[in-house]
Amino acid sequence: MKKQYLLTPGPTPIPRDVMQAMARPIIHHRTPEYKNFTRAINADLKKLFKTEKNVLTFASSGTGAMEASVVNTLSVNDTAIVVMGGKFGERFAEICRAYGVKVVAIDVEWGHSPAPSAVEKALKENPGAKAVFMQLCETSTATVYDVKSIAHMIKKTSAIMVVDAISGLGSDEFNMDEWGVDIAIGGSQKAFMIPPGLSFCAVSNKAWGAIKKSALPKYYYDFNKYECLMEKSDSPWTPAITLAVGLQKALSIIMAEGVCEFTARHAKDAEFVRKSAGSLKLELFSKSPSNAVTAIKVPDGIDGEKLISGLKLKGVTFAGGQGDLKGKIFRIAHMGGITRHDLEDALRILKETLEEVTLS
Amino acid sequence: MKKQYLLTPGPTPIPRDVMQAMARPIIHHRTPEYKNFTRAINADLKKLFKTEKNVLTFASSGTGAMEASVVNTLSVNDTAIVVMGGKFGERFAEICRAYGVKVVAIDVEWGHSPAPSAVEKALKENPGAKAVFMQLCETSTATVYDVKSIAHMIKKTSAIMVVDAISGLGSDEFNMDEWGVDIAIGGSQKAFMIPPGLSFCAVSNKAWGAIKKSALPKYYYDFNKYECLMEKSDSPWTPAITLAVGLQKALSIIMAEGVCEFTARHAKDAEFVRKSAGSLKLELFSKSPSNAVTAIKVPDGIDGEKLISGLKLKGVTFAGGQGDLKGKIFRIAHMGGITRHDLEDALRILKETLEEVTLS
Repeated sequence: MKKQYLLTPGPTPIPRDVMQAMARPIIHHRTPEYKNFTRAINADLKKLFKTEKNVLTFASSGTGAMEASVVNTLSVNDTAIVVMGGKFGERFAEICRAYGVKVVAIDVEWGHSPAPSAVEKALKENPGAKAVFMQLCETSTATVYDVKSIAHMIKKTSAIMVVDAISGLGSDEFNMDEWGVDIAIGGSQKAFMIPPGLSFCAVSNKAWGAIKKSALPKYYYDFNKYECLMEKSDSPWTPAITLAVGLQKALSIIMAEGVCEFTARHAKDAEFVRKSAGSLKLELFSKSPSNAVTAIKVPDGIDGEKLISGLKLKGVTFAGGQGDLKGKIFRIAHMGGITRHDLEDALRILKETLEEVTLS
Repeated sequence: MKKQYLLTPGPTPIPRDVMQAMARPIIHHRTPEYKNFTRAINADLKKLFKTEKNVLTFASSGTGAMEASVVNTLSVNDTAIVVMGGKFGERFAEICRAYGVKVVAIDVEWGHSPAPSAVEKALKENPGAKAVFMQLCETSTATVYDVKSIAHMIKKTSAIMVVDAISGLGSDEFNMDEWGVDIAIGGSQKAFMIPPGLSFCAVSNKAWGAIKKSALPKYYYDFNKYECLMEKSDSPWTPAITLAVGLQKALSIIMAEGVCEFTARHAKDAEFVRKSAGSLKLELFSKSPSNAVTAIKVPDGIDGEKLISGLKLKGVTFAGGQGDLKGKIFRIAHMGGITRHDLEDALRILKETLEEVTLS
């Protein structure tokens, strides 16, 4: 069997030790053994999010945690400022609108990072805005946003800052408490190196203040129901036990490497991919490329979908473009358990395939 | 190492073949390979729910699917009739109230099945009621409800019937289309023999009519978003890939046994546990015992929590009572991959432990 290279921005390959942890006989969740997992997970997630606050874990996709960040903090007719520079920015706007929250959109050209001044302007024009929603890494364009500078401005207002760090966390620099992010959202199938099905929200004191005033309805995602059980390392509903056991193992691998070293490795691998793309005369799509995933423009005269399916036949899975970018870009992830060796192999196969597709 | 017997009403033991399927390298969800899994899962779930309708799959605990059944069908100030005979009946009421839905409670003594006449009376007294919520098996009391008779009455009204079949499906007799159930809810960690983290809703035409009129806000659980992608075997958000791959294998094991044979085996195993309890002079808690799980009263003079921890030391995990029933009952599950041999061993160890606890 041909070696398979899964280089998509989620799911990412699962390390063998994590697989083995998940393959052990399942244990019950209302037991001291399972609570030990929960305790260790919270402790390690805090280090990864760089926060002193608890990190709440949900059995859901990342979209569920995005919804949770809206329904726990806002009320009908509240105004939210949403940075819209790609598919996941749009998703925040859709969720807000579904719950009767007014959206002030900051339209950002796809592939660009929002100017902090644009956020500042929106905050000034909408002094009653309750929250700003944005990405750390907008996965659809492989663009990292300047969360640090923007957080600095939001801090001075009464609005809370919600960051979808789902694809960026661990790969792109992120420092929740120091920067002053109020809700940081994560998802399991990215740098965490475990399968999809878990999502996370870390919640600041300022956000807990907003939560007290929020009147949007919620139940499954009610932060209070999770937070009040954190002391007992318990959860309100049956947790996704197997994924949590895998997560604990994956986090222990990350902690052994060191959080700084882990993120630094992503920066180096991303740099390697960008340089390799350059030497193949390929152009990057993003003006502010993320260290989690690199988006590359499909060269003129080449059918993007054909390129991706040609690579797939050789065992290399890249993600294509989403929405309007379909067929126009392809995306190479370099997060979590993806190794430099995998990237070297994949780029060699990309070079071959580009030549074949150009000739044919 | 001592053999472990996990005989709780979720999670249940995972068969080795299912474990192995989940331990294979993860695949991407927007691929033909994954869509084949999704297609096979929907086809087999239909057979298990006994419905011609699609079965929507969510990455969430069962509680998420319970919430989904409320937010997709109702509006603020609607009236819902809720059968309250245990912890999970109460959960439906809590969800309804969290969303501003008025609850007409049918209080049922715990351990009893609701009288169909009580539901009939509530429907007559509340002709505008939009929905009736009840369990197939109320897990907290190990009681099976007479869904068939109650469905027959609800059918004649404009209300829809929502059944939390999470713990009962596959174990207790259930026939969605023939009985006229409008929304049937399932969860992965029960007879499905896979870990928690997936939940299901099958939706009737009558329920789709209610969905059109529903004004409660929703996004992650929006049935329309799932249903419109079913034809392509796709899903709106990243699915819990590994759990789905395990589910496909588990369903193929159930289909090989045959759905009728699978349910009949549960009936025989439940009968065996009830008879064995009787020969140990133990009294059943439920007046209408489920074939998924058996609740047994802790005999007078025995400390229920001590009994459960004593059994745990010998490798046998039973569930205790929840809420007011803590320390008063223990529950033995006989669903999914739990074998007769496991039950025989566990009941032998129960006999030993009861003698020890009585002597000490």
